[in-house]
Amino acid sequence: MQTYTAPLRDMRFVMHELFDSARLAKLPGLEEVNTELLDTILEEAAKFQEAVLLPLNASGDAEGCQFENGVVRTPKGFKDAYKAFVAAGWGSLNSDPAYGGQGMAMCISKLIEEIVCSCNLSFGLYTGLSHGAYLALKSYGSKSLKDLYLPKLVDGTWTGTMCLTEPHCGTDLGLLRTKAVPVAGGTYQLTGAKIFISAGEHDLTENIVHLVLARLPDAPSGIKGISLFVVPKFIPNPDGSVGARNGVTCERIEHKMGIKASATCQIAFDNATAWLAGEPHKGMRAMFVMMNSERLSVGIQGLGVGEVAYQSAVAYARERVQGRSLSGTKYPEKLADPLIVHPDVRRMLMTMRSYNEGCRALGVWVANQLDVMERLQDTPERQDAEDFVSLMTPIVKALFTDLGYESSNLALQVFGGHGYIVDHGMEQLVRDARITMIYEGTNGIQALDLVGRKLPANMGRSLRQFFHPVGEFIEKNAQDPNIGALLQPFAKAFGALQLATGFIAQKSLSDPEEAGAAATDYLRLFGLVALGFMWIRMAKIATIKLNDKVNVAGPNAAFYDAKYKTATFFIERILPQAGSLLYSIKAGKASMMALRDSAL
Amino acid sequence: MQTYTAPLRDMRFVMHELFDSARLAKLPGLEEVNTELLDTILEEAAKFQEAVLLPLNASGDAEGCQFENGVVRTPKGFKDAYKAFVAAGWGSLNSDPAYGGQGMAMCISKLIEEIVCSCNLSFGLYTGLSHGAYLALKSYGSKSLKDLYLPKLVDGTWTGTMCLTEPHCGTDLGLLRTKAVPVAGGTYQLTGAKIFISAGEHDLTENIVHLVLARLPDAPSGIKGISLFVVPKFIPNPDGSVGARNGVTCERIEHKMGIKASATCQIAFDNATAWLAGEPHKGMRAMFVMMNSERLSVGIQGLGVGEVAYQSAVAYARERVQGRSLSGTKYPEKLADPLIVHPDVRRMLMTMRSYNEGCRALGVWVANQLDVMERLQDTPERQDAEDFVSLMTPIVKALFTDLGYESSNLALQVFGGHGYIVDHGMEQLVRDARITMIYEGTNGIQALDLVGRKLPANMGRSLRQFFHPVGEFIEKNAQDPNIGALLQPFAKAFGALQLATGFIAQKSLSDPEEAGAAATDYLRLFGLVALGFMWIRMAKIATIKLNDKVNVAGPNAAFYDAKYKTATFFIERILPQAGSLLYSIKAGKASMMALRDSAL
Repeated sequence: MQTYTAPLRDMRFVMHELFDSARLAKLPGLEEVNTELLDTILEEAAKFQEAVLLPLNASGDAEGCQFENGVVRTPKGFKDAYKAFVAAGWGSLNSDPAYGGQGMAMCISKLIEEIVCSCNLSFGLYTGLSHGAYLALKSYGSKSLKDLYLPKLVDGTWTGTMCLTEPHCGTDLGLLRTKAVPVAGGTYQLTGAKIFISAGEHDLTENIVHLVLARLPDAPSGIKGISLFVVPKFIPNPDGSVGARNGVTCERIEHKMGIKASATCQIAFDNATAWLAGEPHKGMRAMFVMMNSERLSVGIQGLGVGEVAYQSAVAYARERVQGRSLSGTKYPEKLADPLIVHPDVRRMLMTMRSYNEGCRALGVWVANQLDVMERLQDTPERQDAEDFVSLMTPIVKALFTDLGYESSNLALQVFGGHGYIVDHGMEQLVRDARITMIYEGTNGIQALDLVGRKLPANMGRSLRQFFHPVGEFIEKNAQDPNIGALLQPFAKAFGALQLATGFIAQKSLSDPEEAGAAATDYLRLFGLVALGFMWIRMAKIATIKLNDKVNVAGPNAAFYDAKYKTATFFIERILPQAGSLLYSIKAGKASMMALRDSAL
Repeated sequence: MQTYTAPLRDMRFVMHELFDSARLAKLPGLEEVNTELLDTILEEAAKFQEAVLLPLNASGDAEGCQFENGVVRTPKGFKDAYKAFVAAGWGSLNSDPAYGGQGMAMCISKLIEEIVCSCNLSFGLYTGLSHGAYLALKSYGSKSLKDLYLPKLVDGTWTGTMCLTEPHCGTDLGLLRTKAVPVAGGTYQLTGAKIFISAGEHDLTENIVHLVLARLPDAPSGIKGISLFVVPKFIPNPDGSVGARNGVTCERIEHKMGIKASATCQIAFDNATAWLAGEPHKGMRAMFVMMNSERLSVGIQGLGVGEVAYQSAVAYARERVQGRSLSGTKYPEKLADPLIVHPDVRRMLMTMRSYNEGCRALGVWVANQLDVMERLQDTPERQDAEDFVSLMTPIVKALFTDLGYESSNLALQVFGGHGYIVDHGMEQLVRDARITMIYEGTNGIQALDLVGRKLPANMGRSLRQFFHPVGEFIEKNAQDPNIGALLQPFAKAFGALQLATGFIAQKSLSDPEEAGAAATDYLRLFGLVALGFMWIRMAKIATIKLNDKVNVAGPNAAFYDAKYKTATFFIERILPQAGSLLYSIKAGKASMMALRDSAL
C-alpha cells in the first residue's frame, strides 16, 4: 500500500533552522518549549500515527462507513484507534490547559496534523473538526457552556461538528433556513436539515456536539440574521454525564468519491434543544473562528496527502525497473534501470518534493504567527501576526490543496497502470485529496477572499506582512554569491506579484468583477512566490551549512545538498509560471465575461 | 446525472467550415461523401448514443463488471446496447468495405468516437479496441487470417484485444516473457501471463480475438525479438463458426479507480493455439499500427469526457443559485443569482469550452490527414499527411487527455460538494478520465516520443507540416484588422515554440537526457500553440461570417459570436502559459537530475 515515514529531519529543519523555534519560548504559555521537547513530541507522534493510523487507511477506504437506521458504523479498527489517539493526548496538543489541553505551540500541532493526514485523512477529520468546534465555543460560548463542553471536547470523550451547509446553500449561507425558537429556561428549539456534516454521526464517542447555524424568529434576512447554537446529540447532565437523546437524527451518509472512512452525514434537527453561543445574529463571526482554523487545517491536509504520495512514488520509482537511462545503463546488474533514472519521472518526483517542503515551511511560518497572534495582547507584533495569518489563510487552504491534489495525481502517474488499480493505494490518495479543494470554502472562494477581502482590508495593510520581508530579503542578499543564481528569477517572480497586485487593486476599484476574474490566477501567483520565498531562504541556510565543512558532513551534508538542489529545481522550473499568470491576470475580465449566460 | 447533447453545430462547423469537407470527396473511396451525408450520419449517431449509451453510464459505474470462475459479466444493459450498436453499424464506419465495413471518412468516425466517449467511456472501450485489433490484422495478417477474422471483427460478432503488458513490464516491452513455440500445421503454442487487457473477457460476443505479443524460441532478446500472434478464445471453424475452447483463461479483473464497466482482465495463456501475424520478430511494427490508431482514439476519449463535463457544469451553473453577481443582482426574481454569473465560475466554464472546441478542431485536422495518408499512394501529399499524423499523434493523445482530465476536475469543482458525491456523476467523470493519461503509453511516454522520435526523424521534416502553415497564416494575416488583437499574442506563443524547438534540438545532440527533461513541458507548449492555431483560424472564419450580416443572423450569428469570444479567451488567458513553459524548458535538466537516486 502507501509508503510513509514522517519526514522528521525536514520538520526539525523548518522548526529550528528556518524559523528559530527558540523564539517561541518568549511567548506567554510557551516558556517551557525547547528543541528537545518539540523533537520528542514529534517523534512520538510519528511513531504512533505510523503504527496505528497508516495501517487503517486502505482498509478504511475499502470498507467505508456503514449506515443503518440512523446509526453509523466506522470501519474496523477506527474505534480502537480513536481511543488510543485521544488517550495518548494527540487530540489536545494545543488546547487550553484550563480545559485539560496541553497548550503546546502551533507549529508542532500543525506538523502532527500533517502526519495524521499522511497516514489517514479520513481519520483526521474526526479529530480535526472537533478541534474547530472547540475553538468556536471557547471564543464565543458562555462560561457554563464552556465548562460543560470544552473538557469533553478536549479530552476526546465527545466530538464536535460544524453544521453550516443546507441542501440549497453552501457557499451562500445567507440563504439558510434552519430555525431556532426560544423556549422557557433560556434554551431554543431548533429545526432544519443540514448536509455534508463530517463526523455528524459515528460510533467513536458517547456524544456528539453540533455547532449549528440557524435563524432566530426575529432575524434579519441574509447573512446578518444567523446565530450559532450548540446542539448536543445527547443532552448532558450538569455533572457531564450523558442524558436524554436530543431531536437530532442522521438521515443518510453520502456516497462519495473518497474519504470513505469519514462519515459525511445528512442531519435532521427536529425541535432539538439548543443553546445560543455568542450574541444573537452574530453567528457568522463565531463560525469564522472555526472556519479560519479549519481552512489552515485543510491546507495541511493537502500537504499531508502530497507527502505520502511523494514517498510512495519514490519507493516505487526505485523498485520498478523499466527501460534504460537515456545517458547509458545505470544499473547493469538489473534487467532494466529503475524508473527513478528517467528525467520525466524525476520531473514528477522533484515537483512533488519541492511542493511538499515548500508548503511545510510556509505552514510552519503561519503556525508560528498564529501563536504570536493568540498569545500576545494588543502589541503591534500581535497585530502584524494577525494581519499575516489573515492574509495567508486563503493561500494556505487553496494552494496546499491544489498542489496536494496535483502531487497525488503525479504519484499515480509514476505508478502508471498500477496506480490506477486499487492495489497500491495511489488512486485512493487522488480520491481522498480531491475533497480538500472543496470543503471549508471552495478554492475559488478562497481566491475571492484573498482579492476581495484580504487585499483591500485596511488599505492593504496585511500585504505588508509578506511584501516587506520579501523585499528586504532580496535587498540584503543581492550580493550573496551562494544564492545569486536563484535570487534573480525569484525577484522577477516577486516583481510579477507586485505588478499583479497593483493591477487588481486599481482595476477592481471601478469594477469588482475584475477582482473576481483575476482571483484564482492571483492566488496561485501569490502562492508560488510565497513558496519561492521559503525556498530561497532555505537555500541560503543550506549554503551556509554546506560551507561549514568542519561541522556539517555525512547525512547532514546530504540533507543540505538536497535542500539546495530542490530549491534550484523549484525556482528554475516551477516558479516561472508566475510570468504567465501575470499575463493572464492582465488580460482582465473581458473575454471571461463576454458570452451571455445563455450562450454558454 | 450527466447532462449531454452532442455538439452537432460545432462538429459541422469544424468539418465543413474550418476544414472544407468537400475536399474529402477527391480521395479514392470517399467520392460519395458530401455535407448532407456527413451531417445525416452524425445526427443519427448522436441520437443513438444519447438514447442508448448515456443512460448506462452511471448504472454501469455503480454496478461494475462481475467476475466469477473465469467468467465476466458486463453491467446490466451493456449486452443489449452492444447488439444495437453493432446492428446499427456504428462499429464499422471506417472499416474496409472489402470486409463489410462502410469505408467512411475518418473525421466522422472520430467525431462519433467523441460522442460515444461523452456518453459512456467504458462502453467505448469494447468497440474501440476491437477496431485497433482489426487494423493490425488488416495490415499484417495473412490472407487466410484476414478472411477468417476481419469480417467478424468488422460486423462486431467478435471483439478483439491487444495483449501487450505483463506484470513486470508495460512501457518496456523488451522485457516481455510470453513464449510461442511452433507446432505441426504452422500454428504455435503460446504460454504466458498478460495484465491490464481491456475487454479481455466479457459476455458481449461469442468469441474474443486476442492479438498477443510473445517471443519465438529463437528470438533475439529485447524489443527486436517480439512477434505478434492471433489467439482466439474459441478456435474458429473454417466456416467462421465457433469451435473448441482455446487455452485462454481470465484469471481476475482489476478493481480500478474508474471505467468500472470496462473489464480490465488478467489473461493466462496456457499452451494456447496461436497463429503468427506478420513476420517473426517484427511484432512491434504491427503492434504500432494498432497503437498509433489507439493513441488518437484515447486522445478523443479525453475530449469526449471533457465535453460531457463542460455541458454538465454549464447546466448546473445555470440552475444552482448562490450569491449575487459582483456587478449587481442579475436575476432579481430568484433568491440568489445562478453560479454562471460569477467570474471564477466563468473562468472554469470558458476554460473547458476553449479546450473542447480547440481539441475538436485539431482532432478533425488529424483525422482528415489520416484519410489522405491511407487513401493516396506514394504522392508527396501522402507523405506530408503521414508526417503530420506521426507528429501529432503523441500530442493528441497526451494533450487531449490532460485537458480532458482537467475539464472533468473543473466540472466537479463547479458542482462543489455536490460534485464530490456520486449523485451528479461528476466524480465518475474524474475517475474515468484519469486512465486516459496512462494507457496506450503514459503521457510522459508520448512526450518522449515527440522529442525523441518525431522531432529528429528525417532531420525534423515532420515539424514542417505544422510550422509552415502556422508561419504562413501569421504572415498572411498580419494586416487583418478583425483578428489583429489575437495575432500578436498567438505569434508570440508560436515564437516560444520555435525557440524551445531549437533549444531542444541543439541540447539533445550532446545529451539525450536534455530532451527527456524538456519533454512534458515541450509537448504542452506544442499542444497549446496547436490549439491556439485552431482558435485563431476559427476566429478568422467567425469574423468573416459576422461581417456578412445579410446571410448570417439569429442562432448562426450567436454561434460565430461565441466562437470569436471563446477564441479571445483562449488566446488571452490560456495561451500565455507558453511563455512560462519556454522558461522552464530552457532551465535544462540540471536541477531535475541533480539529486542522487538515493537522495530522493
